[in-house]
Amino acid sequence: MIRVAVNGYNVIGRRVADAVSAQKDMELVGVAKTKPDYKAEIALKKGYKVFAADEKGRRSFQEFGMACSGLSRDMVELSDIVVDATPDEVGAGNKAMYSELGKNAIFQGGEEPDIAGLSFVAQCNYEKARGHKFVRVVSCNTTTLCRVLNALDQSFGVEKARVVIARRAADPDEFKKGPIDAVVLDPATIPSHHGPDVNTVLPHFPVISMALKIPTTHMHLHSLIVTVKDKSVNDSKVIDKLRKTPRLMFVDSGKEGFKSTANVMDYARELGRPRNDLYESVVWKDSITAIDNEIYLFMAVDQEAIVIPENIDAIRAMMGKESREQSMKMTDEALGIMPPAM
Amino acid sequence: MIRVAVNGYNVIGRRVADAVSAQKDMELVGVAKTKPDYKAEIALKKGYKVFAADEKGRRSFQEFGMACSGLSRDMVELSDIVVDATPDEVGAGNKAMYSELGKNAIFQGGEEPDIAGLSFVAQCNYEKARGHKFVRVVSCNTTTLCRVLNALDQSFGVEKARVVIARRAADPDEFKKGPIDAVVLDPATIPSHHGPDVNTVLPHFPVISMALKIPTTHMHLHSLIVTVKDKSVNDSKVIDKLRKTPRLMFVDSGKEGFKSTANVMDYARELGRPRNDLYESVVWKDSITAIDNEIYLFMAVDQEAIVIPENIDAIRAMMGKESREQSMKMTDEALGIMPPAM
Repeated sequence: MIRVAVNGYNVIGRRVADAVSAQKDMELVGVAKTKPDYKAEIALKKGYKVFAADEKGRRSFQEFGMACSGLSRDMVELSDIVVDATPDEVGAGNKAMYSELGKNAIFQGGEEPDIAGLSFVAQCNYEKARGHKFVRVVSCNTTTLCRVLNALDQSFGVEKARVVIARRAADPDEFKKGPIDAVVLDPATIPSHHGPDVNTVLPHFPVISMALKIPTTHMHLHSLIVTVKDKSVNDSKVIDKLRKTPRLMFVDSGKEGFKSTANVMDYARELGRPRNDLYESVVWKDSITAIDNEIYLFMAVDQEAIVIPENIDAIRAMMGKESREQSMKMTDEALGIMPPAM
Repeated sequence: MIRVAVNGYNVIGRRVADAVSAQKDMELVGVAKTKPDYKAEIALKKGYKVFAADEKGRRSFQEFGMACSGLSRDMVELSDIVVDATPDEVGAGNKAMYSELGKNAIFQGGEEPDIAGLSFVAQCNYEKARGHKFVRVVSCNTTTLCRVLNALDQSFGVEKARVVIARRAADPDEFKKGPIDAVVLDPATIPSHHGPDVNTVLPHFPVISMALKIPTTHMHLHSLIVTVKDKSVNDSKVIDKLRKTPRLMFVDSGKEGFKSTANVMDYARELGRPRNDLYESVVWKDSITAIDNEIYLFMAVDQEAIVIPENIDAIRAMMGKESREQSMKMTDEALGIMPPAM
């Protein structure tokens, strides 16, 4: 059993903790939180040990009368590997502690790429994580771009990719964030950080990204424009390739009725997964259009959930003996992700 | 004096009526409306004659005790030219009446391109409108794309243009329309109608458009990706060309503080124009990026106002003797649009 600690228990940490608990070869040591809020209460109700981020936090757990199993450092000592799901750039400050205690760690995409020797997406570079002490699972947008661009590159040879990302402005619980009735350029300068971040995983073709922030809370929406080397590319070849790509879900705006991200999330609510999480990249099948050697498509990503299977695979890639195929199969079965068409 | 009737008095009609009234060489015969609502009241307060769309409408004006100068047909008879600003595809039904009465007419971009012999954007094809009985002023998105792509084509030779349009879902008064918290693919299939519509004005290069509908009420946001023939293109050459392009406004997200469409509309509110209308295409200067021979930029358009100067120029192009430069200068001075840099 791989003993896994989860440091940080917000959007990603809560999901990683559940996903670790669902794996047969992993044991959740516990989760660490800064304060005894309703999220800590959820963890305790699930039977997870909760550790405080620091002494001040431990005192507020005591004052609040909520069980606390010690400090995050204690949790790390009890584990083989830590998934750091603390807020952006807090992870960088934790790295010294993990090093000092000789523990492996996985960081999230909000950290700078140089925090770890490797930026990770399971289906792109699983094997490279072997022997790495630190790995960074890339962000939700980078993950979905890597899945799809890697697949297109395998079959058609990507020459240049361009993407316009319409980002949800806030997660559903972030009531203080805007905008309410505006488009924010995120940033106005081009490229946004997403394209260069894809290149930390897939370095051999240019990816130019433009990003907007819009008044939604569910899903980022990608408009992809990809020039490929294979001039014989056509719609059905692209559909055939993406149908066989793992962790990708096809939807259709026609008879299936997926007109918007609202329909996708409504569908997700019927899948019976915790929190209606969608781990798959969602591609509109009827958007797939090849004009000459340029491929156009729309894709959506559940920003809260897509990186969860990647975190699980990263644990095995660093600590286990399973091949990529074996690990992805184990992860997907435990999370209820359908295998791709053969 | 060119006698102009405005048929339809909603988003476009109200603005065209004011703009016609502001021209020294035009006289507003009146405006036609279906019902005696607050918009009709505004027209009367401004001193415009209000005509009813049909007999039923005339009766409701009478019942409501609101002045009505006759039927829209009477208004058309009194005019030299009609600007048809009725809802999408209602204009097509009015065409027979304009023909029968021997009147020229201008239709809006919501009508099919074949309603008129010419799709019109002043700075692209003003001269072609001479002698045309019917002209179609293209939609807000098509207008802004034509202004910018025509300018880029003049200087660098456009090989292929691609655009992702994040459309405001509803105008500020359309309280019934959604979405509230979703992205709608508009449509999922590619291209959207915008690219082919640009080709009705600028036929000689491909324009592939992808469109989304998002929860905003102000401004469409365009992400443009344009491949040009001139391989020596660079950021400053593009900035220099667009600075000299009429009806285009530069904004900057840095020290100027234009981080979002909300800032642009806040700026517009300070310009002192009726309804805070922005007739200019708004281009983020710091977004302009040339990578190899591909130009990237962000642009926003006030969907309610951008076509107003085009309607005025179309009137002169069809009925007057002024050159393009003369007409655009007259229109811009009357509307308070700054001339481009020389």
